Amino acid sequence: MEYPSKLIEDAVNAVSQLPGIGKKTALRLVLHLVKEHRDKTASLTEALNNLRANIRFCKHCHTIADEDECTICRSHRRERSILCVVEDSKDVMAIENTAQFRGLYHVLGGIISPIHGVGPAELTIDSLMARVSNHGGEIKEVILALSPTLEGDTTSFYLHRKLKELPVKITSIARGIPMGGDLEYADEITLGRSITARILFN
Amino acid sequence: MEYPSKLIEDAVNAVSQLPGIGKKTALRLVLHLVKEHRDKTASLTEALNNLRANIRFCKHCHTIADEDECTICRSHRRERSILCVVEDSKDVMAIENTAQFRGLYHVLGGIISPIHGVGPAELTIDSLMARVSNHGGEIKEVILALSPTLEGDTTSFYLHRKLKELPVKITSIARGIPMGGDLEYADEITLGRSITARILFN
Repeated sequence: MEYPSKLIEDAVNAVSQLPGIGKKTALRLVLHLVKEHRDKTASLTEALNNLRANIRFCKHCHTIADEDECTICRSHRRERSILCVVEDSKDVMAIENTAQFRGLYHVLGGIISPIHGVGPAELTIDSLMARVSNHGGEIKEVILALSPTLEGDTTSFYLHRKLKELPVKITSIARGIPMGGDLEYADEITLGRSITARILFN
Repeated sequence: MEYPSKLIEDAVNAVSQLPGIGKKTALRLVLHLVKEHRDKTASLTEALNNLRANIRFCKHCHTIADEDECTICRSHRRERSILCVVEDSKDVMAIENTAQFRGLYHVLGGIISPIHGVGPAELTIDSLMARVSNHGGEIKEVILALSPTLEGDTTSFYLHRKLKELPVKITSIARGIPMGGDLEYADEITLGRSITARILFN
Protein backbone atom coordinates (compact mmCIF):
# COMPACT_ATOMS: atom_id res chain seq x y z
CA MET A 1 0.00 0.00 0.00
CA GLU A 2 1.16 3.52 -0.77
CA TYR A 3 0.69 6.16 1.91
CA PRO A 4 -0.12 9.78 1.15
CA SER A 5 2.15 10.89 3.96
CA LYS A 6 5.69 9.98 5.00
CA LEU A 7 4.74 10.52 8.65
CA ILE A 8 1.95 7.95 8.36
CA GLU A 9 4.28 5.53 6.58
CA ASP A 10 6.94 5.78 9.28
CA ALA A 11 4.39 5.33 12.04
CA VAL A 12 2.78 2.32 10.28
CA ASN A 13 6.19 0.72 9.79
CA ALA A 14 7.07 1.18 13.46
CA VAL A 15 3.72 -0.11 14.77
CA SER A 16 3.65 -3.12 12.43
CA GLN A 17 6.90 -4.35 14.00
CA LEU A 18 4.81 -5.42 16.99
CA PRO A 19 3.86 -9.12 17.08
CA GLY A 20 0.48 -9.91 15.54
CA ILE A 21 0.05 -6.41 14.10
CA GLY A 22 0.06 -6.28 10.30
CA LYS A 23 0.20 -3.21 8.08
CA LYS A 24 -3.60 -2.88 7.91
CA THR A 25 -4.09 -3.00 11.67
CA ALA A 26 -1.14 -0.65 12.14
CA LEU A 27 -2.73 1.84 9.75
CA ARG A 28 -6.03 1.63 11.63
CA LEU A 29 -4.27 2.31 14.95
CA VAL A 30 -2.19 5.15 13.53
CA LEU A 31 -5.22 6.85 11.93
CA HIS A 32 -7.05 6.49 15.23
CA LEU A 33 -4.26 8.40 16.99
CA VAL A 34 -4.40 11.11 14.33
CA LYS A 35 -8.15 11.51 14.92
CA GLU A 36 -7.86 11.62 18.71
CA HIS A 37 -6.54 14.49 20.76
CA ARG A 38 -2.78 14.84 20.82
CA ASP A 39 -2.69 14.12 24.58
CA LYS A 40 -3.69 10.51 23.87
CA THR A 41 -0.59 9.92 21.79
CA ALA A 42 1.55 11.73 24.35
CA SER A 43 0.29 9.61 27.24
CA LEU A 44 0.69 6.39 25.22
CA THR A 45 4.26 7.10 24.21
CA GLU A 46 5.12 8.35 27.69
CA ALA A 47 3.84 5.14 29.30
CA LEU A 48 5.87 3.02 26.86
CA ASN A 49 9.07 5.06 27.23
CA ASN A 50 8.70 5.11 30.99
CA LEU A 51 8.17 1.35 31.04
CA ARG A 52 11.17 0.60 28.86
CA ALA A 53 13.46 2.94 30.76
CA ASN A 54 12.55 1.85 34.28
CA ILE A 55 11.54 -1.79 34.12
CA ARG A 56 13.69 -4.18 36.19
CA PHE A 57 13.90 -7.93 36.59
CA CYS A 58 13.64 -9.41 40.08
CA LYS A 59 17.09 -10.55 41.22
CA HIS A 60 15.64 -13.71 42.77
CA CYS A 61 12.96 -14.98 40.39
CA HIS A 62 13.63 -12.86 37.23
CA THR A 63 9.99 -11.71 36.89
CA ILE A 64 9.56 -8.20 35.55
CA ALA A 65 9.32 -5.78 38.43
CA ASP A 66 9.44 -2.08 39.27
CA GLU A 67 12.40 -2.60 41.59
CA ASP A 68 15.27 -5.06 42.05
CA GLU A 69 12.99 -7.38 44.00
CA CYS A 70 9.48 -8.23 42.84
CA THR A 71 6.42 -7.85 45.08
CA ILE A 72 6.02 -11.64 45.32
CA CYS A 73 9.59 -12.33 46.49
CA ARG A 74 9.37 -9.38 48.90
CA SER A 75 6.08 -10.51 50.43
CA HIS A 76 6.13 -12.14 53.88
CA ARG A 77 2.91 -13.97 53.19
CA ARG A 78 4.21 -16.37 50.52
CA GLU A 79 5.18 -19.96 51.19
CA ARG A 80 8.93 -20.09 50.63
CA SER A 81 9.19 -23.87 50.33
CA ILE A 82 7.52 -24.21 46.92
CA LEU A 83 8.99 -22.87 43.68
CA CYS A 84 6.94 -22.75 40.49
CA VAL A 85 9.10 -22.72 37.33
CA VAL A 86 7.54 -20.89 34.36
CA GLU A 87 8.62 -19.74 30.92
CA ASP A 88 8.04 -16.00 31.31
CA SER A 89 6.46 -13.22 33.37
CA LYS A 90 3.15 -13.57 31.54
CA ASP A 91 2.80 -17.06 33.08
CA VAL A 92 3.42 -15.63 36.56
CA MET A 93 0.52 -13.21 36.03
CA ALA A 94 -1.71 -16.00 34.69
CA ILE A 95 -1.02 -18.26 37.70
CA GLU A 96 -1.35 -15.35 40.17
CA ASN A 97 -4.71 -14.64 38.62
CA THR A 98 -6.00 -18.09 39.63
CA ALA A 99 -5.23 -17.32 43.33
CA GLN A 100 -4.40 -21.04 43.73
CA PHE A 101 -0.66 -20.75 44.35
CA ARG A 102 0.98 -19.13 47.36
CA GLY A 103 4.60 -20.10 46.77
CA LEU A 104 7.40 -18.38 44.88
CA TYR A 105 8.20 -18.37 41.17
CA HIS A 106 11.22 -18.82 38.96
CA VAL A 107 11.05 -17.33 35.47
CA LEU A 108 13.25 -19.15 32.95
CA GLY A 109 13.09 -16.37 30.38
CA GLY A 110 12.24 -18.82 27.58
CA ILE A 111 12.28 -22.53 26.83
CA ILE A 112 14.89 -24.77 25.25
CA SER A 113 14.38 -24.52 21.50
CA PRO A 114 17.32 -25.45 19.27
CA ILE A 115 15.45 -24.17 16.18
CA HIS A 116 15.33 -20.68 17.68
CA GLY A 117 18.89 -20.96 18.99
CA VAL A 118 17.82 -21.13 22.63
CA GLY A 119 19.88 -23.58 24.68
CA PRO A 120 19.97 -24.14 28.46
CA ALA A 121 22.70 -21.49 28.80
CA GLU A 122 20.35 -18.74 27.57
CA LEU A 123 17.86 -19.47 30.37
CA THR A 124 18.08 -18.78 34.11
CA ILE A 125 18.73 -22.45 34.89
CA ASP A 126 21.99 -21.86 36.79
CA SER A 127 20.18 -19.36 38.96
CA LEU A 128 17.39 -21.91 39.57
CA MET A 129 19.90 -24.60 40.60
CA ALA A 130 21.60 -22.12 42.92
CA ARG A 131 18.28 -21.12 44.50
CA VAL A 132 17.23 -24.72 45.09
CA SER A 133 20.58 -25.91 46.50
CA ASN A 134 21.76 -22.80 48.38
CA HIS A 135 18.91 -22.28 50.77
CA GLY A 136 19.85 -25.16 53.07
CA GLY A 137 16.92 -27.29 52.02
CA GLU A 138 14.37 -24.51 52.46
CA ILE A 139 12.83 -25.31 49.09
CA LYS A 140 10.96 -28.61 49.34
CA GLU A 141 9.12 -28.73 46.03
CA VAL A 142 9.68 -27.49 42.48
CA ILE A 143 6.62 -27.36 40.23
CA LEU A 144 7.42 -27.43 36.51
CA ALA A 145 4.67 -25.29 34.92
CA LEU A 146 5.72 -25.22 31.27
CA SER A 147 3.46 -25.47 28.24
CA PRO A 148 2.84 -29.06 27.09
CA THR A 149 4.55 -28.51 23.73
CA LEU A 150 7.59 -30.24 22.29
CA GLU A 151 9.88 -27.47 23.57
CA GLY A 152 8.12 -27.25 26.93
CA ASP A 153 8.39 -30.98 27.49
CA THR A 154 12.06 -30.98 26.45
CA THR A 155 12.77 -28.21 28.94
CA SER A 156 10.84 -29.98 31.71
CA PHE A 157 12.77 -33.18 30.99
CA TYR A 158 16.08 -31.30 31.10
CA LEU A 159 15.20 -29.57 34.37
CA HIS A 160 14.01 -32.84 35.89
CA ARG A 161 17.34 -34.49 35.08
CA LYS A 162 19.29 -31.65 36.72
CA LEU A 163 17.01 -31.23 39.74
CA LYS A 164 16.59 -34.89 40.67
CA GLU A 165 20.10 -34.91 42.19
CA LEU A 166 18.95 -32.39 44.78
CA PRO A 167 16.78 -33.31 47.80
CA VAL A 168 13.61 -31.73 46.38
CA LYS A 169 10.25 -33.04 45.21
CA ILE A 170 9.65 -32.36 41.51
CA THR A 171 6.07 -32.07 40.26
CA SER A 172 4.41 -30.92 37.05
CA ILE A 173 1.09 -29.16 36.40
CA ALA A 174 -1.74 -31.58 35.61
CA ARG A 175 -2.58 -32.42 32.00
CA GLY A 176 -6.18 -33.15 31.18
CA ILE A 177 -9.38 -32.01 29.52
CA PRO A 178 -9.80 -28.23 30.04
CA MET A 179 -13.02 -26.84 31.51
CA GLY A 180 -15.68 -26.59 28.84
CA GLY A 181 -13.60 -28.84 26.59
CA ASP A 182 -15.39 -31.46 24.55
CA LEU A 183 -14.18 -35.06 24.99
CA GLU A 184 -14.94 -35.77 21.35
CA TYR A 185 -12.48 -33.15 20.15
CA ALA A 186 -9.68 -33.79 22.66
CA ASP A 187 -6.54 -35.32 21.15
CA GLU A 188 -5.88 -38.94 22.16
CA ILE A 189 -2.77 -38.19 24.24
CA THR A 190 -4.59 -35.67 26.43
CA LEU A 191 -7.63 -37.93 26.74
CA GLY A 192 -5.44 -40.95 27.50
CA ARG A 193 -3.53 -39.04 30.19
CA SER A 194 -6.74 -37.73 31.70
CA ILE A 195 -7.82 -41.35 32.23
CA THR A 196 -4.54 -42.74 33.57
CA ALA A 197 -4.17 -39.70 35.86
CA ARG A 198 -7.84 -39.76 36.94
CA ILE A 199 -8.75 -38.13 40.23
CA LEU A 200 -11.15 -39.05 43.04
CA PHE A 201 -14.61 -37.58 42.47
CA ASN A 202 -15.52 -35.23 45.32
CA MET B 1 -5.90 -9.12 35.92
CA GLU B 2 -3.36 -7.98 38.51
CA TYR B 3 0.03 -6.86 37.26
CA PRO B 4 3.24 -7.38 39.22
CA SER B 5 4.46 -3.98 38.12
CA LYS B 6 2.90 -0.51 38.08
CA LEU B 7 4.90 0.31 34.93
CA ILE B 8 3.41 -2.66 33.10
CA GLU B 9 -0.08 -1.74 34.32
CA ASP B 10 0.23 1.86 33.09
CA ALA B 11 1.55 0.74 29.72
CA VAL B 12 -1.19 -1.90 29.32
CA ASN B 13 -3.86 0.67 30.18
CA ALA B 14 -2.48 3.12 27.63
CA VAL B 15 -2.12 0.54 24.84
CA SER B 16 -5.57 -0.98 25.44
CA GLN B 17 -7.16 2.42 24.70
CA LEU B 18 -6.42 1.73 21.03
CA PRO B 19 -9.35 0.38 19.01
CA GLY B 20 -9.53 -3.40 18.81
CA ILE B 21 -6.78 -3.91 21.38
CA GLY B 22 -7.95 -5.56 24.60
CA LYS B 23 -6.02 -5.96 27.85
CA LYS B 24 -4.61 -9.36 26.86
CA THR B 25 -3.28 -8.16 23.50
CA ALA B 26 -1.96 -5.00 25.15
CA LEU B 27 -0.07 -7.10 27.69
CA ARG B 28 1.42 -9.22 24.91
CA LEU B 29 2.59 -6.11 23.03
CA VAL B 30 3.98 -4.48 26.16
CA LEU B 31 5.90 -7.60 27.20
CA HIS B 32 7.27 -7.84 23.67
CA LEU B 33 8.70 -4.32 24.00
CA VAL B 34 10.25 -5.20 27.35
CA LYS B 35 11.96 -8.21 25.76
CA GLU B 36 13.26 -6.28 22.76
CA HIS B 37 16.08 -3.77 22.73
CA ARG B 38 15.24 -0.35 24.13
CA ASP B 39 15.83 1.25 20.71
CA LYS B 40 12.70 -0.47 19.38
CA THR B 41 10.50 1.28 21.92
CA ALA B 42 12.31 4.55 21.31
CA SER B 43 11.80 4.40 17.54
CA LEU B 44 8.14 3.40 17.94
CA THR B 45 7.30 6.24 20.32
CA GLU B 46 9.31 8.71 18.27
CA ALA B 47 7.42 7.82 15.07
CA LEU B 48 4.08 8.24 16.86
CA ASN B 49 5.00 11.54 18.53
CA ASN B 50 6.43 12.85 15.30
CA LEU B 51 3.29 11.86 13.42
CA ARG B 52 0.93 13.47 15.93
CA ALA B 53 2.95 16.66 16.14
CA ASN B 54 3.47 17.24 12.41
CA ILE B 55 0.51 15.74 10.59
CA ARG B 56 -1.57 18.20 8.56
CA PHE B 57 -4.80 18.01 6.62
CA CYS B 58 -4.85 19.08 2.97
CA LYS B 59 -6.53 22.48 2.67
CA HIS B 60 -8.36 21.39 -0.49
CA CYS B 61 -9.45 17.79 0.03
CA HIS B 62 -8.86 17.31 3.83
CA THR B 63 -6.83 14.11 3.40
CA ILE B 64 -4.05 13.65 5.92
CA ALA B 65 -0.84 15.05 4.51
CA ASP B 66 2.67 16.07 5.49
CA GLU B 67 2.08 19.63 4.29
CA ASP B 68 -0.83 22.03 3.79
CA GLU B 69 -1.50 20.51 0.39
CA CYS B 70 -1.55 16.75 -0.20
CA THR B 71 0.51 15.07 -2.92
CA ILE B 72 -2.63 14.26 -4.92
CA CYS B 73 -3.97 17.84 -5.01
CA ARG B 74 -0.47 19.12 -5.77
CA SER B 75 0.09 16.68 -8.66
CA HIS B 76 -0.18 17.99 -12.23
CA ARG B 77 -1.04 14.55 -13.54
CA ARG B 78 -4.51 14.22 -11.95
CA GLU B 79 -7.75 14.85 -13.77
CA ARG B 80 -9.24 17.93 -12.10
CA SER B 81 -12.77 17.45 -13.43
CA ILE B 82 -13.70 14.42 -11.27
CA LEU B 83 -14.07 14.51 -7.50
CA CYS B 84 -14.41 11.33 -5.47
CA VAL B 85 -16.14 11.89 -2.10
CA VAL B 86 -15.05 9.48 0.65
CA GLU B 87 -15.54 9.11 4.40
CA ASP B 88 -11.92 9.30 5.54
CA SER B 89 -8.26 9.22 4.50
CA LYS B 90 -8.18 5.43 4.77
CA ASP B 91 -10.61 5.27 1.84
CA VAL B 92 -8.35 7.55 -0.23
CA MET B 93 -5.48 5.09 0.31
CA ALA B 94 -7.71 2.12 -0.55
CA ILE B 95 -8.89 3.71 -3.83
CA GLU B 96 -5.38 4.93 -4.71
CA ASN B 97 -4.24 1.36 -4.24
CA THR B 98 -6.54 0.17 -7.02
CA ALA B 99 -4.84 2.56 -9.51
CA GLN B 100 -8.26 2.91 -11.22
CA PHE B 101 -8.94 6.54 -10.34
CA ARG B 102 -6.98 9.56 -11.62
CA GLY B 103 -9.19 12.39 -10.32
CA LEU B 104 -9.19 14.29 -7.04
CA TYR B 105 -10.70 13.40 -3.68
CA HIS B 106 -12.80 15.04 -1.05
CA VAL B 107 -12.62 13.60 2.49
CA LEU B 108 -15.79 14.21 4.53
CA GLY B 109 -14.14 13.35 7.84
CA GLY B 110 -16.98 11.02 8.80
CA ILE B 111 -20.55 10.18 7.80
CA ILE B 112 -23.89 11.48 9.02
CA SER B 113 -24.79 9.43 12.08
CA PRO B 114 -27.30 10.95 14.51
CA ILE B 115 -26.63 8.13 17.03
CA HIS B 116 -23.00 9.21 17.27
CA GLY B 117 -23.93 12.88 17.24
CA VAL B 118 -22.49 13.49 13.78
CA GLY B 119 -24.59 15.84 11.68
CA PRO B 120 -23.83 17.50 8.30
CA ALA B 121 -22.23 20.46 10.10
CA GLU B 122 -19.48 18.23 11.54
CA LEU B 123 -18.41 17.14 8.06
CA THR B 124 -16.57 19.05 5.31
CA ILE B 125 -19.77 19.41 3.26
CA ASP B 126 -19.61 23.24 3.03
CA SER B 127 -16.10 22.94 1.71
CA LEU B 128 -17.28 20.34 -0.83
CA MET B 129 -20.09 22.62 -2.05
CA ALA B 130 -17.65 25.52 -2.33
CA ARG B 131 -15.19 23.40 -4.31
CA VAL B 132 -17.83 22.19 -6.74
CA SER B 133 -19.46 25.59 -7.32
CA ASN B 134 -16.44 27.93 -7.14
CA HIS B 135 -14.29 26.52 -9.87
CA GLY B 136 -16.35 27.91 -12.74
CA GLY B 137 -17.65 24.52 -13.77
CA GLU B 138 -14.22 22.88 -13.76
CA ILE B 139 -15.60 19.91 -11.80
CA LYS B 140 -17.84 17.87 -14.11
CA GLU B 141 -18.52 14.79 -11.99
CA VAL B 142 -18.79 13.93 -8.29
CA ILE B 143 -18.48 10.24 -7.38
CA LEU B 144 -20.08 9.33 -4.04
CA ALA B 145 -17.87 6.53 -2.72
CA LEU B 146 -19.37 5.88 0.72
CA SER B 147 -19.92 2.51 2.38
CA PRO B 148 -23.30 0.94 1.55
CA THR B 149 -24.48 1.07 5.16
CA LEU B 150 -27.47 2.89 6.65
CA GLU B 151 -25.29 5.90 7.56
CA GLY B 152 -23.41 5.83 4.27
CA ASP B 153 -26.61 5.76 2.24
CA THR B 154 -28.10 8.56 4.35
CA THR B 155 -25.02 10.69 3.71
CA SER B 156 -25.06 9.91 -0.02
CA PHE B 157 -28.74 10.85 -0.18
CA TYR B 158 -28.08 14.12 1.68
CA LEU B 159 -25.16 15.01 -0.60
CA HIS B 160 -27.15 14.12 -3.70
CA ARG B 161 -29.93 16.49 -2.62
CA LYS B 162 -27.47 19.33 -2.11
CA LEU B 163 -25.37 18.70 -5.22
CA LYS B 164 -28.16 18.18 -7.73
CA GLU B 165 -28.74 21.96 -7.85
CA LEU B 166 -25.26 22.41 -9.29
CA PRO B 167 -24.36 21.66 -12.93
CA VAL B 168 -22.46 18.49 -12.10
CA LYS B 169 -22.95 14.79 -12.83
CA ILE B 170 -23.42 12.75 -9.63
CA THR B 171 -22.47 9.08 -9.67
CA SER B 172 -22.03 6.38 -7.05
CA ILE B 173 -19.66 3.42 -6.84
CA ALA B 174 -21.18 0.20 -8.19
CA ARG B 175 -22.89 -2.22 -5.81
CA GLY B 176 -22.74 -5.90 -6.67
CA ILE B 177 -21.31 -9.28 -5.83
CA PRO B 178 -17.66 -8.89 -4.76
CA MET B 179 -14.91 -10.92 -6.47
CA GLY B 180 -14.78 -14.40 -4.99
CA GLY B 181 -18.19 -13.84 -3.41
CA ASP B 182 -20.67 -16.68 -3.43
CA LEU B 183 -24.12 -15.95 -4.96
CA GLU B 184 -25.73 -18.30 -2.49
CA TYR B 185 -24.61 -16.22 0.49
CA ALA B 186 -25.18 -12.74 -0.98
CA ASP B 187 -28.03 -10.81 0.63
CA GLU B 188 -31.09 -10.33 -1.57
CA ILE B 189 -30.69 -6.54 -1.96
CA THR B 190 -27.15 -6.87 -3.29
CA LEU B 191 -28.07 -9.78 -5.53
CA GLY B 192 -31.17 -7.95 -6.78
CA ARG B 193 -29.16 -4.82 -7.55
CA SER B 194 -26.47 -6.86 -9.29
CA ILE B 195 -29.15 -8.12 -11.69
CA THR B 196 -30.95 -4.80 -12.32
CA ALA B 197 -27.59 -3.05 -12.81
CA ARG B 198 -26.13 -5.87 -14.90
CA ILE B 199 -23.27 -5.06 -17.28
CA LEU B 200 -22.38 -6.13 -20.82
CA PHE B 201 -20.18 -9.23 -20.82
CA ASN B 202 -16.87 -8.45 -22.51
